[in-house]
Amino acid sequence: MTGFRLGLLNPNTSRDHTDAMARLALSVLPEGSDVVAATAERGPATIESYVDSAVAAAEVVELVRANPGLDAYLVACFGDPALDAARELTDAPVVGIGEAAYRAACLVARRFAVITTLPRSIPQLEDELAAAGVAASCVGVLPLAVPVAEQGAAYGETSDAIVTVSRCAVNELRAEALVLACGAMSETARAIQEEVGVPIVDGVSFGALSAYALWRCGLRTSKTGAYARPEPIPYTAMADFTSAKAL
Amino acid sequence: MTGFRLGLLNPNTSRDHTDAMARLALSVLPEGSDVVAATAERGPATIESYVDSAVAAAEVVELVRANPGLDAYLVACFGDPALDAARELTDAPVVGIGEAAYRAACLVARRFAVITTLPRSIPQLEDELAAAGVAASCVGVLPLAVPVAEQGAAYGETSDAIVTVSRCAVNELRAEALVLACGAMSETARAIQEEVGVPIVDGVSFGALSAYALWRCGLRTSKTGAYARPEPIPYTAMADFTSAKAL
Amino acid sequence: MTGFRLGLLNPNTSRDHTDAMARLALSVLPEGSDVVAATAERGPATIESYVDSAVAAAEVVELVRANPGLDAYLVACFGDPALDAARELTDAPVVGIGEAAYRAACLVARRFAVITTLPRSIPQLEDELAAAGVAASCVGVLPLAVPVAEQGAAYGETSDAIVTVSRCAVNELRAEALVLACGAMSETARAIQEEVGVPIVDGVSFGALSAYALWRCGLRTSKTGAYARPEPIPYTAMADFTSAKAL
Amino acid sequence: MTGFRLGLLNPNTSRDHTDAMARLALSVLPEGSDVVAATAERGPATIESYVDSAVAAAEVVELVRANPGLDAYLVACFGDPALDAARELTDAPVVGIGEAAYRAACLVARRFAVITTLPRSIPQLEDELAAAGVAASCVGVLPLAVPVAEQGAAYGETSDAIVTVSRCAVNELRAEALVLACGAMSETARAIQEEVGVPIVDGVSFGALSAYALWRCGLRTSKTGAYARPEPIPYTAMADFTSAKAL
Amino acid sequence: MTGFRLGLLNPNTSRDHTDAMARLALSVLPEGSDVVAATAERGPATIESYVDSAVAAAEVVELVRANPGLDAYLVACFGDPALDAARELTDAPVVGIGEAAYRAACLVARRFAVITTLPRSIPQLEDELAAAGVAASCVGVLPLAVPVAEQGAAYGETSDAIVTVSRCAVNELRAEALVLACGAMSETARAIQEEVGVPIVDGVSFGALSAYALWRCGLRTSKTGAYARPEPIPYTAMADFTSAKAL
Amino acid sequence: MTGFRLGLLNPNTSRDHTDAMARLALSVLPEGSDVVAATAERGPATIESYVDSAVAAAEVVELVRANPGLDAYLVACFGDPALDAARELTDAPVVGIGEAAYRAACLVARRFAVITTLPRSIPQLEDELAAAGVAASCVGVLPLAVPVAEQGAAYGETSDAIVTVSRCAVNELRAEALVLACGAMSETARAIQEEVGVPIVDGVSFGALSAYALWRCGLRTSKTGAYARPEPIPYTAMADFTSAKAL
Repeated sequence: MTGFRLGLLNPNTSRDHTDAMARLALSVLPEGSDVVAATAERGPATIESYVDSAVAAAEVVELVRANPGLDAYLVACFGDPALDAARELTDAPVVGIGEAAYRAACLVARRFAVITTLPRSIPQLEDELAAAGVAASCVGVLPLAVPVAEQGAAYGETSDAIVTVSRCAVNELRAEALVLACGAMSETARAIQEEVGVPIVDGVSFGALSAYALWRCGLRTSKTGAYARPEPIPYTAMADFTSAKAL
Repeated sequence: MTGFRLGLLNPNTSRDHTDAMARLALSVLPEGSDVVAATAERGPATIESYVDSAVAAAEVVELVRANPGLDAYLVACFGDPALDAARELTDAPVVGIGEAAYRAACLVARRFAVITTLPRSIPQLEDELAAAGVAASCVGVLPLAVPVAEQGAAYGETSDAIVTVSRCAVNELRAEALVLACGAMSETARAIQEEVGVPIVDGVSFGALSAYALWRCGLRTSKTGAYARPEPIPYTAMADFTSAKAL
Repeated sequence: MTGFRLGLLNPNTSRDHTDAMARLALSVLPEGSDVVAATAERGPATIESYVDSAVAAAEVVELVRANPGLDAYLVACFGDPALDAARELTDAPVVGIGEAAYRAACLVARRFAVITTLPRSIPQLEDELAAAGVAASCVGVLPLAVPVAEQGAAYGETSDAIVTVSRCAVNELRAEALVLACGAMSETARAIQEEVGVPIVDGVSFGALSAYALWRCGLRTSKTGAYARPEPIPYTAMADFTSAKAL
Repeated sequence: MTGFRLGLLNPNTSRDHTDAMARLALSVLPEGSDVVAATAERGPATIESYVDSAVAAAEVVELVRANPGLDAYLVACFGDPALDAARELTDAPVVGIGEAAYRAACLVARRFAVITTLPRSIPQLEDELAAAGVAASCVGVLPLAVPVAEQGAAYGETSDAIVTVSRCAVNELRAEALVLACGAMSETARAIQEEVGVPIVDGVSFGALSAYALWRCGLRTSKTGAYARPEPIPYTAMADFTSAKAL
Repeated sequence: MTGFRLGLLNPNTSRDHTDAMARLALSVLPEGSDVVAATAERGPATIESYVDSAVAAAEVVELVRANPGLDAYLVACFGDPALDAARELTDAPVVGIGEAAYRAACLVARRFAVITTLPRSIPQLEDELAAAGVAASCVGVLPLAVPVAEQGAAYGETSDAIVTVSRCAVNELRAEALVLACGAMSETARAIQEEVGVPIVDGVSFGALSAYALWRCGLRTSKTGAYARPEPIPYTAMADFTSAKAL
Repeated sequence: MTGFRLGLLNPNTSRDHTDAMARLALSVLPEGSDVVAATAERGPATIESYVDSAVAAAEVVELVRANPGLDAYLVACFGDPALDAARELTDAPVVGIGEAAYRAACLVARRFAVITTLPRSIPQLEDELAAAGVAASCVGVLPLAVPVAEQGAAYGETSDAIVTVSRCAVNELRAEALVLACGAMSETARAIQEEVGVPIVDGVSFGALSAYALWRCGLRTSKTGAYARPEPIPYTAMADFTSAKAL
């Protein structure tokens, strides 16, 4: 029935991450849906610093332009890079997996913890929690101390580390749900949920369904105000984004 | 495929409101879904004061108890009465149409306005916007000055009033999307959207799909902490809620 | 001289709690004052969950209606259920013991801790602290781990538990005053204060005097805006609150 | 019965202001209470600038030291100068008329406006509203454009100006109560209340009763932490405040 | 004496903007200072949308890498794109002209207004004001309705528009200072200040001196935590930023 | 070239503190600058309580009046007493060392800790962090437990205590920079920075350069609104501040 076509945009250059996230999205969307997955062609293999994010954000803009005409877009990196910019370029709805994950956690629990990979990301995640209006519901951001590149691929070791940190969050910080702050962890969420006994949220599956929900309700990105199409500014050494018509 | 069964709980006693909202929910849910709609048996026909809300909240608790075993619940009154209490009584996910509407608006616009019926509701809605963490995205709450009982039933007059207020919100307050703060207005949202030219959000359709999304992701209400089942407190002159088993 | 008549409304069904709180209120009010104490006829014996609160809130509305014509009202449950609704139903001032307790603590100390009974109440109390605008002055909400039903009745054991938690709050969290988040603990406050050495606030006595203060200043609940009398909405299976005239 | 002795400290040098506020306080306190009123011996006749406030704050400290042994203190200037410092110098409770007024307004209305004398005070009052945690309940601070020195003395003209501004606040900003941000306006509050039809709060009468309420509840300023007695620092050219014993 | 060398990084491709800002910076820095000005080689000529910002942010990262070894850096675009990323790449201090301008305004006034070019930027600027912790001091963001490309170059017309908007901000919103939210307006600030009579802040001159101040105090960007050097992530189709050594 | 003349105002009576801070300021200001240092003639030798602050604030007002005609002023006490009042009395820019220190820390790190002398100051500093809009960047305020009078004079012992606390802040609270909340600690900042390995901020040197920066940019304290000259109020037993002309 649906014919819903979701653009899943992975701002890093790891195609296996893209594939895993696309599988996950497709597995939860209603029958007849399609996931068009795209991977950044330039930039970092994973995103762990502000520099990585800045480069990846520019790639998100490119990915939206290169994939016009879809029903909705999912920016599939937990920091939601260039989410606002992507919304300018299309009137299809655009969802980020970070804000989707926070929202899902708030719907099933009063207080959640966020599990991330490296301590350096804590302040950045705290800023995002504040910007998303959910800081008061977050009892803490806990680092995993396993490099992103090693996560998800081999279930065993990463999963163990996530379980250990998760139990600490539940028992000591009274977290009632957990958010996995990395698209690459998404595939392991359900397995871990059974071990830990509280809801474990990955942003990819709830994000994909949120994008579907907006589309199904006939809600499109507002073209009045902040998300109006970009002004016709001359661009040097790259294509002008205002010339992108068919989005 | 799905077999998803949503409990749509209308805390006021107007069965025609219930029916209209159930139709709307069913129209957006994936094929094979079912909506079990329930209407409060006691209390106000519409909810316009804190007193009405307090009475309706107790009815929500009753409605959850009277409709066990569903896959998810939608509290179908914009003020989200007794949302937390409903979550204690079930491990199915529970969504409120108020928070769903705010969330949808934030996904398609940077700044939205809320359209309500009476000026007296403005402070209450402002409190809810703050509690939902979206106050900074709301440019104003505007009253309609048409009694709730007359809304929705006759399209013409109410719709005109909504269109007039909507244009004011867009042109003078720079609202980029609009939220209709009343389940009874939901049916008219799409028609008005075409007239006003910005996204118009009703909480019922996006709320129903959010409940579906949580269920589809395997996310259930956390039974650790704030939403654990109620303590076994003795109740006088009414059934004890802790004896409710099958929820 | 005064002739001040305070309606003390206990939203739970425990008459011994009502009596203890009424004694406390009467002991601090100026000579010639009267306390009209009322106990909920339906609902939970104590209030420990969101479900209990939702049911109790509807009882507060009933209690105000059943006790018209008094000079002021005290909602005598720490969560201040239906405080806004009660204010709609009367132009006498209405005070809640929760907000009264927070306010008293802020007047005698810069930072206070809240002592509650069960861990599950922590998020709810944190929400109330935020709504009351005093979150920045609260260093923590500490659970007591003694069931509400056993508190207050037998001084010994409960008092010991309160003293232990209180010392922890003062020594480790640098609390300068303590708030007892339960009407049932109120009677023990003074005894504990002497043991712990910092002010210990119960909301009942300060709340009763705040209600007296408003009345004495000629301040009555505003009937303009949010606390205007409820709209004349039809009610099913129960009396319509707008017909209550003499309040 | 009471024997309650309140120290009313006027930080400006206008004895007629002191007398008027003392009369007002005495008129609302329970029979048998006493008001010991003290006026600053140095500094400005009224307080309208940050400079005036800074000078007056130092006088408050002097006034507390010069009036030891009372049951409670009321700092009778709307900006609550040196409130924290006064609390360090005594273990009697200390209340400020500014915070008292805001609190009273919040108890009888959901949204209030503040009426002040000069536009320059608006930012300072907004800071105080934020610090008191009541900013969200204030719909605006409106200047009166009548010099402080001319207020209160002659009822007629000032009252007219207050009535005009009050009506604007109620009709245009939807204020449900009004706070008079000047001790000197206090005497006119009741007369204006009848004209405008919403509660009009002066901080002196509610503040005096709040101080009484704390005393009656046995609550004294915490001597642990922020309000502990000052450290024994050597003072030059003035008495050392740590030598003040009998407070 | 100094030998201070400031890297002024213009993230847009307009060399005349770069030159004007470099002149301004040099004119206020202590004698002996040097300004190394760099212009983005790719991307938009001016920055007016989220898309423009995302592209420009990636260019800031490039500009820092291409200009190693300086004493401090000034990101010379009002939105402060990639400020955090730039700080990761160097241990020299990095200042943005947006936050510098807000800070200067707060030092000379209690309330300021921001003047920007297009209405679409208002929400983005409001987010930045909130993130900078100065939202409470800003009375409004006012658009100019003159395209960025026409500003600064021809003094006359733009200046007139700025003066008109500025007077509105001062007279109607009680702004006490004004911030020009565009590097390109910086050169006209002093001329306008004389016409309008309140301080007019451009971020370039105060930002350059703030960078100097940090350097002069021996304060360098912390390499512990959020601004530690980027992790060694593999980069595709572009140089890896972790290989940048000499910064 | 400059001829910049900074008024460094020490609100406590310790001339050796004044001298040390003046040396530090002069050492960072551009060649040709002059520091006119003034010490309070009345009041406490150091400032450790709210009482000390209130007295010192009145002295700051005196110090500004006694030192007219300078190019900028630095209020050299970490609590920034009477900063607003000082700004009323002059149109030269006025900077406080507290806000300067917080600002510098935010420019070189995402999260900082504050090191103070006594536990009693923690709430006051937390209030100041909130008022400065930087509370979200502060991971904690840590007391030193060495009396102010003994700090700075003898490098050895105090420095050791600061180093110990600093390491705790960095290792346990993940502080990325440290703020020394006492002018008297300023001289030791650089030495400690080398030991601890993160930026250590004293407010005196960055504050002096901030004052210089404002002056160099031609920014003067706004005389519109909050910082307009004080109203001509009659003063008793002391000079009227409005008569001060030449400031």
